[in-house]
Amino acid sequence: MKLSARNQIKGKIVEVKKGATTSHVRVEIGPGIVVTSSITNEAVDELGLKAGMAASVVIKASDVMIAVD
Amino acid sequence: MKLSARNQIKGKIVEVKKGATTSHVRVEIGPGIVVTSSITNEAVDELGLKAGMAASVVIKASDVMIAVD
Amino acid sequence: MKLSARNQIKGKIVEVKKGATTSHVRVEIGPGIVVTSSITNEAVDELGLKAGMAASVVIKASDVMIAVD
Amino acid sequence: MKLSARNQIKGKIVEVKKGATTSHVRVEIGPGIVVTSSITNEAVDELGLKAGMAASVVIKASDVMIAVD
Amino acid sequence: MKLSARNQIKGKIVEVKKGATTSHVRVEIGPGIVVTSSITNEAVDELGLKAGMAASVVIKASDVMIAVD
Amino acid sequence: MKLSARNQIKGKIVEVKKGATTSHVRVEIGPGIVVTSSITNEAVDELGLKAGMAASVVIKASDVMIAVD
Repeated sequence: MKLSARNQIKGKIVEVKKGATTSHVRVEIGPGIVVTSSITNEAVDELGLKAGMAASVVIKASDVMIAVD
Repeated sequence: MKLSARNQIKGKIVEVKKGATTSHVRVEIGPGIVVTSSITNEAVDELGLKAGMAASVVIKASDVMIAVD
Repeated sequence: MKLSARNQIKGKIVEVKKGATTSHVRVEIGPGIVVTSSITNEAVDELGLKAGMAASVVIKASDVMIAVD
Repeated sequence: MKLSARNQIKGKIVEVKKGATTSHVRVEIGPGIVVTSSITNEAVDELGLKAGMAASVVIKASDVMIAVD
Repeated sequence: MKLSARNQIKGKIVEVKKGATTSHVRVEIGPGIVVTSSITNEAVDELGLKAGMAASVVIKASDVMIAVD
Repeated sequence: MKLSARNQIKGKIVEVKKGATTSHVRVEIGPGIVVTSSITNEAVDELGLKAGMAASVVIKASDVMIAVD
């Protein structure tokens, strides 16, 4: 599958924290660069996400903002 | 200003491409890791965004998906 | 690739309309059900999107609202 | 009310699953095509959403990605 | 139509600026409070949006961030 | 920090409601105008968000829809 999303960055899952319906998954995409994702528990179960697994973060360009100091 | 967005990653702007109303800004956040952002031309002008500038990408956790092979 | 997005619906592209930086792609996912997507021109080029092609629409659950009459 | 969102698709609610603050609502929009929505519990209560009800899914074009095989 | 989106705020359109495929619509929702919306040209045409018209801005709660000084 | 998001509106937090992983924060941005935000519990803790605090809501233009009667 090829996806239109401009941002698809490989990494490793460092934490999966499940809530009542929503989970937070943290993926290290570079040394000291950790991205937090909020997805459904259902997705976590279906993909079998666990700390230590290889995984990518996927982000649509229109969801990325820019900040400057 | 402190922001609730879980993902605020420092980097350097490598390209700014303006369209009719929407610009694409590409930020290198690590060696070989470039994030594409789609924002308004107005924001580009107001922040004076240019290639070579230090800038962060900011992404809300609920806008991040996870992919596995 | 398996993706966390809850909504991945197969269909056929019925129109690709390019703008200065942003394209609109319309995908028929069922008889008379057409979904409009706004993505970067770059994604359209990279995936070679054209009317008539098989394609899926992908939507994160947190981006779906509900309306009732 | 008329809404700018390009995607407003009629269907029938097949499941409402409440969490601590966030609910998942599943709407069948065609034979075998079910869309999952993640909304606040407050919205579920205010609209009185229940399985069996007629409801539409509403999705902004900029939140739709395209995937090809 | 009743919508699940938590934020539906009445106001008046103060500007419509069309691009190649994407328009920016600015709505004043209170004295000196103007909200900018980026939507498709198609939506602008279909709803007949023009400066001076009454209109609401509609925002899903999961798209709102919080900032503190 | 200056942010590309077009909508940054000052107000006062009127309610913080924590769930299992996701909180709802309500901010009054004008007389009778309250905006609901859905963010992670982690963000609420890190920013120390509480009712009565000054805070801004931040919304990307591409996440704002327009409705007319």
